[in-house]
Amino acid sequence: MTSSSAQSPRRLAFTKGHGTENDFVLVPDPEGTIDLAPSDVAFLADRRAGIGGDGVIRVVPTVLSGDPVAVGQASQARWFMDYRNADGSVAEMCGNGTRVFAAYLRREGLETADEFAIATRAGVKHVHVSVDPAGQTRYSVNLGPWALQHEDRAREQGSDALVKVAAHDAMPALSLDLGNPHTVVALPEDKELDELDLHVQPAVNPAPTEGTNVEFVRPVGPGHLAMRVFERGVGETRSCGTGAAAAALAMRWWAGGDDQSTTWTVDVPGGTVYVRPLPGQEVELSGPAALVADGEATLP
Amino acid sequence: MTSSSAQSPRRLAFTKGHGTENDFVLVPDPEGTIDLAPSDVAFLADRRAGIGGDGVIRVVPTVLSGDPVAVGQASQARWFMDYRNADGSVAEMCGNGTRVFAAYLRREGLETADEFAIATRAGVKHVHVSVDPAGQTRYSVNLGPWALQHEDRAREQGSDALVKVAAHDAMPALSLDLGNPHTVVALPEDKELDELDLHVQPAVNPAPTEGTNVEFVRPVGPGHLAMRVFERGVGETRSCGTGAAAAALAMRWWAGGDDQSTTWTVDVPGGTVYVRPLPGQEVELSGPAALVADGEATLP
Repeated sequence: MTSSSAQSPRRLAFTKGHGTENDFVLVPDPEGTIDLAPSDVAFLADRRAGIGGDGVIRVVPTVLSGDPVAVGQASQARWFMDYRNADGSVAEMCGNGTRVFAAYLRREGLETADEFAIATRAGVKHVHVSVDPAGQTRYSVNLGPWALQHEDRAREQGSDALVKVAAHDAMPALSLDLGNPHTVVALPEDKELDELDLHVQPAVNPAPTEGTNVEFVRPVGPGHLAMRVFERGVGETRSCGTGAAAAALAMRWWAGGDDQSTTWTVDVPGGTVYVRPLPGQEVELSGPAALVADGEATLP
Repeated sequence: MTSSSAQSPRRLAFTKGHGTENDFVLVPDPEGTIDLAPSDVAFLADRRAGIGGDGVIRVVPTVLSGDPVAVGQASQARWFMDYRNADGSVAEMCGNGTRVFAAYLRREGLETADEFAIATRAGVKHVHVSVDPAGQTRYSVNLGPWALQHEDRAREQGSDALVKVAAHDAMPALSLDLGNPHTVVALPEDKELDELDLHVQPAVNPAPTEGTNVEFVRPVGPGHLAMRVFERGVGETRSCGTGAAAAALAMRWWAGGDDQSTTWTVDVPGGTVYVRPLPGQEVELSGPAALVADGEATLP
């Protein structure tokens, strides 16, 4: 960090935004002078005693970020997405957050092209801005590579794990790695998404040592599915970008396909996102982003 | 309403604040020109797609409020607390919200004295501003009259209702009216506040036709108690002002006293408030208020 002193600013400019109701507090830091202490982040993310968000993102020029990983990306990306979890800990990135970050850069005129790159702790991410048929701006981000976690076991059995929710029978599931771990369950025909009680953590067997995000999916039509997600360490959320990608990739795998011409529509509780498999075992996530408020916070 | 047209403003100034983590979005309306549609309120209160708060309060000069009840209070109170529930419906008032409203009026220089009145749909409320021993500003509000709901039954049995939480045995409870209904349960010695599962609504018997707010209390020391609250139509919250008053009044009643010299200290999950019984069967609530952010929202 390039903060000039231990004295944190008492007023901090912010923008609040969300991507399919996965929400973030953005903190503009054009000079690279803001040192966000974990307690500052926790305050900004606190929904009752602070502003409120699933995470906090400092918007800082890559070269001024003070982060050695980011600085290494400076020749490719002007702006660094300094993502923090709501508890103040540092995190790699977040799919939905990337769209909100991109929407902010565009609105502020910090990026003006329809294609640009952003620096993250998980590497440079490429963003494409377009307009969907309804006239809404859509932000597409290449999430990078993905893989099955236990390909051999999955090929033998059609699944590699069992997931149990409350009193329901255990359901077969597929484990994927999208930089973070996911376990996708296709609901049996006699179960509806609505009837799942996700107040308690679904039990995954075998239990992943680092935990996992669990997606419950249901086909809606060709190339179209609905899902609910229980995020590792958080609980049920309104949306999870990598989770939506995992859900579509799992459905494609179960269908026996490696089709790259289909863009999957994924309905999450907070809206709709789009998933497109890319060549080279990569995957793109698209969707809307909204910037809903701008202001100044008074740090306690 | 004195709104000049059906066209709602697309940008709206706001201040976010909380009283013991019961939080509110304040909308300043010095000219009495803002017509907050229920959908606007729901957006402002939405924690993920909007700003986020337990309620929304328009801050408007009483004479310009457009509310006939408020206008009748104009000779006594300069500012009207136009309180709305998070779902957009109109509500009478809110104890913790009153403190946040008072803190805003003081910060903005709209009230400068240590004693002033505010207009609410539940009548004129008198506010007293003081500084507590720790140097923190404390806002005291006379909540007005209170009463036992079933005094005869309570006197005969020591309680007038039974409350059941999850697998625990039914516990005796006392019903009070503070403008809104409350049912207070003194936890048995072998139970801790922490062990109650308040994800599901406690069952009250006999079931009040209009529902009730349920407080679970535990003595901490003389004149000092801790509580958790399940608010009617909301769920567990971090604080409830009238609930804290009901809890202290119930404990005093069970102790057989009508002592008016004790100020009760009530620890709620979101902080600490103070309850003082007043002559004439009225009660005063005191506590802190924090204004944490100021900005402009972009209405969808």
